[in-house]
Amino acid sequence: MNIAVFGTGIVGATIGSKLINLGHSVMMGSRTSTNEKAATWAAANGTKATTGTFADAAGFGTIIFNCTNGFGAVEAMKLAGEENINGKVVIDISNPLDFSKGMPPSLFVCNTDSLAEQLQREFPDVKFVKSLNTVNCNVMVNPSLVPGDHDMFLCGNDADAKTTVRDILSNWFGWKNIVDLGDISGARAMEMYLPMWLRLWGALGVPNFNIHIAK
Amino acid sequence: MNIAVFGTGIVGATIGSKLINLGHSVMMGSRTSTNEKAATWAAANGTKATTGTFADAAGFGTIIFNCTNGFGAVEAMKLAGEENINGKVVIDISNPLDFSKGMPPSLFVCNTDSLAEQLQREFPDVKFVKSLNTVNCNVMVNPSLVPGDHDMFLCGNDADAKTTVRDILSNWFGWKNIVDLGDISGARAMEMYLPMWLRLWGALGVPNFNIHIAK
Repeated sequence: MNIAVFGTGIVGATIGSKLINLGHSVMMGSRTSTNEKAATWAAANGTKATTGTFADAAGFGTIIFNCTNGFGAVEAMKLAGEENINGKVVIDISNPLDFSKGMPPSLFVCNTDSLAEQLQREFPDVKFVKSLNTVNCNVMVNPSLVPGDHDMFLCGNDADAKTTVRDILSNWFGWKNIVDLGDISGARAMEMYLPMWLRLWGALGVPNFNIHIAK
Repeated sequence: MNIAVFGTGIVGATIGSKLINLGHSVMMGSRTSTNEKAATWAAANGTKATTGTFADAAGFGTIIFNCTNGFGAVEAMKLAGEENINGKVVIDISNPLDFSKGMPPSLFVCNTDSLAEQLQREFPDVKFVKSLNTVNCNVMVNPSLVPGDHDMFLCGNDADAKTTVRDILSNWFGWKNIVDLGDISGARAMEMYLPMWLRLWGALGVPNFNIHIAK
């Protein structure tokens, strides 16, 4: 499948490389077609790995993984162009983390709104599904890095899009337990979990952990 | 031990009854000494269960469980009087839930502050330890209601107070896995987990669940 990955950071690179390893063709999108980090990633990942602008990548991909940082998410979609994103499934991994006020980061949107809801309002014809943002990027694509049962969440307004993402999480990435948190406003819960993730990271001293719902 | 329980709702009643069953003497505190819900609770829990004002209860208790609703927490401590609470351990179970704008509730403080931090700032000589707010009240006092491994959190500025609360959680209530999230600002994580708890409650359809840290 042709897949777009937005964002050239560690999350985009990790997701992109996993997709390449699964046999897909991946275009990494960024603000410019000459992004150095994207070029470095592509050079290391073979001929199926390419780079381009957000618009190039969105036009190329049947599905889009949004791995931009939170502040850049809306702008990335705008630059991609509605003609390239409308009707498509966008897996939104971004987190609204604000590091500008020091550590720990705060959230620049939360409580009565979320970044995923902002994206959905701005681009109503895009099928946003929030997922994967609650774990370290290595765990995202290889949940077996964390032993035992543990759970991935997703939410979104489009049932078929959620089924698509559930299949990707399960069949491509190996997630065994996937919990549907309902419509896109479930992203408030998933994004507001970040302060807990950050505290647990501090308490545990390792980034490869996750939560399991005991019931 | 003589223990104060602030709040006459389901959380206060559940915590209070558990403490009575463990052989402790419990005074349930509220705004007035004639609170009907407190009287009903005391009548059902034998001679070691008594009622009084917040000041009465705080004066009586060696330890205080704050089970008020979030909006009432600071006011309850004010009414209790610094002479009755200073130097004592207060286990803060309250959550800053605001139901006034409909369901789901939002948080009236979060992100760069928390209710427990507000309490600690207002009453610097009280040893606040945030805990138990992340599960249903029945699970608080009987974690075996949820099968398998699952975790309780605590945070606070006073190391000895955290040891005291850890012992209570473990020896009195039966918690096996207790994760220390650091100083009282860890309450941001614990209170901002509430939207996730509420979403999970909706998704799972039962209130007796909890999370386990897989690592």
